[in-house]
Amino acid sequence: MRVSLRAVAATLMMAGAAMTAASAAEPRQTHIPEAAMAAVPELRERALASDLGYEITESLTTEVGARLAGSEADARAVAWARAKFEELGFDKVWVEPVTFLKWERRSERGEVLGANAQQLTLTALGGSPGGTVEGEVVRFADLAALEAAPAGSLDGKLAFVDYKMERARDGSGYGPGSRVRSRGPSEAIEAGAIGYLMRSAGTDSHRNPHTGITRFDEGLTPVPSAALSVPDADQLARLLALGPQRVRVAIDAGWNGEATSYNVIGDIRGSSKPEEVVLIGGHLDSWDLGTGAIDDAAGIGITMAAAKLIGDLPQHPARTIRVVAFANEEQGLYGGKAYAAAHADEITAHQIAAESDFGAGRVYGYSSSAPAHAQAAGRQIAQALAPLGIKHMPGTGGPGPDISPFAAQGLAWARLSQDGTDYFDLHHTPDDTLDKIDPEALAQNVAAYAVFAYLAASAEGDFGSTPAAAKEE
Amino acid sequence: MRVSLRAVAATLMMAGAAMTAASAAEPRQTHIPEAAMAAVPELRERALASDLGYEITESLTTEVGARLAGSEADARAVAWARAKFEELGFDKVWVEPVTFLKWERRSERGEVLGANAQQLTLTALGGSPGGTVEGEVVRFADLAALEAAPAGSLDGKLAFVDYKMERARDGSGYGPGSRVRSRGPSEAIEAGAIGYLMRSAGTDSHRNPHTGITRFDEGLTPVPSAALSVPDADQLARLLALGPQRVRVAIDAGWNGEATSYNVIGDIRGSSKPEEVVLIGGHLDSWDLGTGAIDDAAGIGITMAAAKLIGDLPQHPARTIRVVAFANEEQGLYGGKAYAAAHADEITAHQIAAESDFGAGRVYGYSSSAPAHAQAAGRQIAQALAPLGIKHMPGTGGPGPDISPFAAQGLAWARLSQDGTDYFDLHHTPDDTLDKIDPEALAQNVAAYAVFAYLAASAEGDFGSTPAAAKEE
Repeated sequence: MRVSLRAVAATLMMAGAAMTAASAAEPRQTHIPEAAMAAVPELRERALASDLGYEITESLTTEVGARLAGSEADARAVAWARAKFEELGFDKVWVEPVTFLKWERRSERGEVLGANAQQLTLTALGGSPGGTVEGEVVRFADLAALEAAPAGSLDGKLAFVDYKMERARDGSGYGPGSRVRSRGPSEAIEAGAIGYLMRSAGTDSHRNPHTGITRFDEGLTPVPSAALSVPDADQLARLLALGPQRVRVAIDAGWNGEATSYNVIGDIRGSSKPEEVVLIGGHLDSWDLGTGAIDDAAGIGITMAAAKLIGDLPQHPARTIRVVAFANEEQGLYGGKAYAAAHADEITAHQIAAESDFGAGRVYGYSSSAPAHAQAAGRQIAQALAPLGIKHMPGTGGPGPDISPFAAQGLAWARLSQDGTDYFDLHHTPDDTLDKIDPEALAQNVAAYAVFAYLAASAEGDFGSTPAAAKEE
Repeated sequence: MRVSLRAVAATLMMAGAAMTAASAAEPRQTHIPEAAMAAVPELRERALASDLGYEITESLTTEVGARLAGSEADARAVAWARAKFEELGFDKVWVEPVTFLKWERRSERGEVLGANAQQLTLTALGGSPGGTVEGEVVRFADLAALEAAPAGSLDGKLAFVDYKMERARDGSGYGPGSRVRSRGPSEAIEAGAIGYLMRSAGTDSHRNPHTGITRFDEGLTPVPSAALSVPDADQLARLLALGPQRVRVAIDAGWNGEATSYNVIGDIRGSSKPEEVVLIGGHLDSWDLGTGAIDDAAGIGITMAAAKLIGDLPQHPARTIRVVAFANEEQGLYGGKAYAAAHADEITAHQIAAESDFGAGRVYGYSSSAPAHAQAAGRQIAQALAPLGIKHMPGTGGPGPDISPFAAQGLAWARLSQDGTDYFDLHHTPDDTLDKIDPEALAQNVAAYAVFAYLAASAEGDFGSTPAAAKEE
């Protein structure tokens, strides 16, 4: 199998050379040494047999619980992450500050008024202002229908976008689903609305609404904006089918000054090229409704455990494995942006990065941004991942959220695609709790990250990280 | 098949005669005429093809929503039921008053204090007083462990009973599960507790706690008592495994005067013996957290629809079919007790009764209290139910909750046992909403009740309803 792959690689190398014959300096073909490939089976099996990823996830979700960026619990999460890195024996542990405006949720309540009076289960969207609004509800089947509403047509009314997000293994339904959250409020205000309601961007049928950040376009006066649980959206749609309905939405929430949290970082030092870094990680903050188990304690647990297992090897790989627990992903990738800014002049040293932030479902696919000269190494990594049920899926996906700002500057990325079929049943809801995680699936993720990080850190040659300006030349 | 059943019936008749040879007056063998049996297949198929049961269930849960006994919504539910009976063309529609003390829930909140500070999702048990209590939590694995706690051992503390209810098709896990709710608070107070927490009596893993009535023993001062959602019980148990935990429970709830609601009753008049009644029904009230879809709008929808389908037949059966929408089942069978009291001198006229109050899962079994002289007729009913996938299960089960007070006075009962495997995932939670009901399973229930009620109302001879005093002689 290896011989065959190498033959293919050689062919591609020649094709690559032919295609870029005009280039002055052809990059060296990246390759993973046989000794590193040979070390993989034991690492993979140890990871599959280890409970460490689950234990870390349990520790964070239990001891800290929900950890909204900027909250007291967020500060405890930072202390927890620092202590956990130390406890696990990382070679270097430090924090880097991340500053942002702090949003707080204090209370929220929705109700249908009049002849069909009843409570509605809803949750304020992150970024929503507080306020109590009362008016007739106008239903829109989707965002496009709201966008088509003429200015003034919603004066004194609440918009309700009733779009049903689709379930998909790769989470592709979340694109249109989350646009209803990010764009809907501003569109509603443009049409005159005094409040905004949406069917949760979720795929479940439980009485647990899905929160998430929204933004208001500049120049607009924000209005109370909330997501109904899926059964409540069903209910409101049925009530509206019977006749006009008035609702009252009372939200106490809003922006409250500036807060500083921290990216918490731990290194497993490379044995021969410690200044070269393979970065893995997840985000430390969560929404406030659940305990952020799948979003994203799992990512923290998976990547901390993977690096720890590599650190336990008798011989560290050549490069440093860095785990970053990013601050405030949920409200705008603040941790990822801060990391990219703080390390802007170290792009080339960051060989490749992969983030786990899509729950705890099994990894089914591997892809990366690897340029031609690193594709043979990518196939070696895929070969080592194959026994975990992971397919090589070149050309798919993109970088995880917190590494995307750095990737936009030229960082090479890899993606270990997780099965997200059930992810949006839980995402951003009170129901995002530890019991939803299958320890065996989590261990498969740990194994995948361990194998990927170990091989990338053992590679001879790079994965294409280059300052974006240089790439564009 | 019919010939064979009749031969068996004749044999049993003789056996019955032999066994009770000493009796002065041997009851006539109850029998269902061939013409009635012949009418069943068409009735059954019409019921399976009808959406009526679902439409009624949708109407009640949507237009009224949650309807806690004694609330404004409960009064709307009474008006709804009366109007629905009229709209469906019942021959006689009326209400009978049911008076009880009114319990109200206004707000509730739980939190872990200290180093692991976090919110707990809980709901006050029905009957809980209001109050804010704060103290250390003491966990008990089950009710027996709490019962063994010495007096004074919980002084200043909160008891937490962490019993995990078991899933079962027949709901048999609810016996021990609900005793934790009914008995736990008093046991906790006896040991000195200032508050009571329990793992919800439920089989789900969602952030939706299960409420339900509790009672405090006479002479005890009630304390705030609440159920944690299953994930929150898991969380609190994990936290307690790490060390002592203090919690604060703040409940605003309590008894607030007397309320009068109503049993709402509709008759489909019998063609030749209208004074003889076959009673079916469910309960109209619900808890306040969900919209009471499976508990028990489904029972209302099933039995109203079954009776309406019988009423639509060219020829009504001999006896009257009566549908009772019972008031305030949830807080102590008030409607059932009031009906039994109001009709105490009509036990013999009430031929047999069956209540639907176990969700919307398919019926899998038929049983009844039928004495020997009515067992052949019971087998005829079972034979007519068999094409619906329903087995004859004589000797199992008991009367539904609202007919149990009347059954204790001598009323004959039948039971159409529903598959309750998933019932306690939803029971008494915010998640008890219409989307959880499978319309096809609901139609199978309607067909079962229609067949049962039609045949019982067509029978020649009785099903054994006799004042209990007479039975004991």
